[in-house]
Amino acid sequence: MISKPPPPAHSPMTQFPVVDGCLQIGGIPLTRLAAQVGATPFYAYDRSLLDARVAQVRAALPAEVKLHYAMKANPMPALVCHMARLVDGLDVASAGEMRVALDSGMAPEDISFAGPGKQERDLARAVAAGILLNVESAHEARLLAELSARMGMAARVAIRVNPDFELKLSGMKMGGGPKQFGVDAEKVPELLAEVGQAGLAFEGFHLFCGSQSLKAEAICEAQEKSVELAIRLAQFAPAPVRLLNIGGGFGIPYFPGDAPLDLAPIGAGLDSLLSRVAGALPGAQLAIELGRYLVGEAGLYVCSVIERKLSRGQLFLVVDGGMHQHLAASGNFGQVIRKNYPVVLGNRINGEKRETASVVGPLCTPLDLLADRIELPQAEEGDLVVVFQSGAYGLTASPSRFLSHPAPIEVLV
Amino acid sequence: MISKPPPPAHSPMTQFPVVDGCLQIGGIPLTRLAAQVGATPFYAYDRSLLDARVAQVRAALPAEVKLHYAMKANPMPALVCHMARLVDGLDVASAGEMRVALDSGMAPEDISFAGPGKQERDLARAVAAGILLNVESAHEARLLAELSARMGMAARVAIRVNPDFELKLSGMKMGGGPKQFGVDAEKVPELLAEVGQAGLAFEGFHLFCGSQSLKAEAICEAQEKSVELAIRLAQFAPAPVRLLNIGGGFGIPYFPGDAPLDLAPIGAGLDSLLSRVAGALPGAQLAIELGRYLVGEAGLYVCSVIERKLSRGQLFLVVDGGMHQHLAASGNFGQVIRKNYPVVLGNRINGEKRETASVVGPLCTPLDLLADRIELPQAEEGDLVVVFQSGAYGLTASPSRFLSHPAPIEVLV
Repeated sequence: MISKPPPPAHSPMTQFPVVDGCLQIGGIPLTRLAAQVGATPFYAYDRSLLDARVAQVRAALPAEVKLHYAMKANPMPALVCHMARLVDGLDVASAGEMRVALDSGMAPEDISFAGPGKQERDLARAVAAGILLNVESAHEARLLAELSARMGMAARVAIRVNPDFELKLSGMKMGGGPKQFGVDAEKVPELLAEVGQAGLAFEGFHLFCGSQSLKAEAICEAQEKSVELAIRLAQFAPAPVRLLNIGGGFGIPYFPGDAPLDLAPIGAGLDSLLSRVAGALPGAQLAIELGRYLVGEAGLYVCSVIERKLSRGQLFLVVDGGMHQHLAASGNFGQVIRKNYPVVLGNRINGEKRETASVVGPLCTPLDLLADRIELPQAEEGDLVVVFQSGAYGLTASPSRFLSHPAPIEVLV
Repeated sequence: MISKPPPPAHSPMTQFPVVDGCLQIGGIPLTRLAAQVGATPFYAYDRSLLDARVAQVRAALPAEVKLHYAMKANPMPALVCHMARLVDGLDVASAGEMRVALDSGMAPEDISFAGPGKQERDLARAVAAGILLNVESAHEARLLAELSARMGMAARVAIRVNPDFELKLSGMKMGGGPKQFGVDAEKVPELLAEVGQAGLAFEGFHLFCGSQSLKAEAICEAQEKSVELAIRLAQFAPAPVRLLNIGGGFGIPYFPGDAPLDLAPIGAGLDSLLSRVAGALPGAQLAIELGRYLVGEAGLYVCSVIERKLSRGQLFLVVDGGMHQHLAASGNFGQVIRKNYPVVLGNRINGEKRETASVVGPLCTPLDLLADRIELPQAEEGDLVVVFQSGAYGLTASPSRFLSHPAPIEVLV
């Protein structure tokens, strides 16, 4: 007899300890944390898990590789302040993020700003702050030349390159082919000449090929190609390369069947890339830029069961949170096929009686679905539904004003 | 020779006049309006188009049908105040929306509140305000009974019914099968008995089968079935039905190939339904509840071209707005297949030189796409890109804090 293979399961979520059936966040039982916050829904981020993740990355990668935090993943000010003490640099994607990054105490030297369509007023702020600008086009380089002349200080620039390859198997492709991101690799030499003539302070290159990849080999290949491309382009540079930011793309497991990324091959790959860089670009620092990978697994979204509702044989747990506060978990943030995030009852992890339930929010739309027919311990009103893997692209990536519900609180524990 | 049929085109957008190649909003040229607002991006809603749309609906439907505005489509306070003077009732989906509705001057008698998982504190506010509660479950009815006893005033209630059919061909199905919305039709008689025993002030039924339908026949069929279902259920009611809200579901054309909804058959269908209701439920008012259909076509999203960017033969217009402010237009709000909204250069409608361009925003993600390879007049920096059909589910349905850009302004002109 041939038995059917079991359906794919979520990667086990073991980062938060369980005591007496209750999740612990930063050593505090979830039920007590909910009482401290005073209301659901809320997002909670665990400091010790941020520490542990950064330590894990540092241990797996060569010590010489600089580690940057990409704030777009989670710009909560207290979290950014915490991360600023752990990493070597912050990467921002808007003038708003730049303000939070400067407030965090990170040295302006170690803050960089990337993103298409930067406006003149934002470029001026960045030049005045003394942060590094990842230039996305010749147009931006010209604006920066004018601003530098007018302000009497040379803008610090790196060229963001749109490579001629892309990160294979990534959740999101951001390089290769025609793109709004960066300068097409073949046009970079010409731009480097302009940068030199304009007297801008050239510091290096930024390459970013994609995000949310769970395949170490694909990441290694993209990193290798990025370094080789930067070395080729560096011969046209008006000054030695000081920083080579090869992006991130490290994914975390969200869906059934996803396995955690293996850092070991990436560490080994970076080891040889460091020798290559030391030989070809003496004095250059190699940096990687991680957002989701550093913070995603340290965060939870927590909401309360308002009502058990049985409709035509199907059980719905109606909760006080939903897609307006966690769009990605509802499957409506760029996903083509909706899949469930890992979801549990945080105060009742191991209930013996189990049941199949869908977790739905309070919005008047069937899109407001946090979990579609999952097995849970039998839930009661007031139980705390927890969505794991919610530390990145959660609240700020959600339409929190939709239907005018109160905004959820964020806490760093 | 057999010629290929032309590709589907957008329904013509004629609601905003064009003078000297520039769109006019409320009689003001778009360029002047942009100067008045002082910054892009912004949303603009045209009062006269709101008036015209309500007048058009009133002319097409029998005068006896009550017209409600579903605030979730657009809760901007000034717009709600304007709509409150045009329609017969406001429908809210949260306590936050209720506050705006009460501020608008609409009589509490004519405000109703629907949505799953209403919390006790919100139900208490609604009872105190004297608005009508569309009860979504037996659980809610019990909470309301307790609150009514405690507060010394009987909650006004209608039963939201989860019908045993659904609106065919709608963009979003909200009735039929197991659902979190409303009370399963077959359980309504039992609930009506409870409502009567609890002394709640029963006023009628609410049925809502779906939204964004462009097929008049499907809407007529759903309305007829809704009325017949309500009549069947009314025999179990503890008091005469005063209000029968049969929802909306009227769609507007967004995508190539979409044709505007024909109101004439709906008017004819409602005419016969009115007689049916008059016979079976004497004294009952028939109401329809429209959100998107009343406001969607009266609104524009306006952003500025920051840069023309050519990458490997493809032209990108990088603008200062994007998916963070208009998620639906980027194709990331519940759409399975991304299609373009109608997009024009609002200050240069009829340029002779034309080109194919993609309109992209300032976010570091390829999802930030407002138009994928459309034909436009040749654009210059500072030109105003306009997304039509943006009056509903625009700003509040978007993750406006994503990447910490400033929030766009909304104006009612």
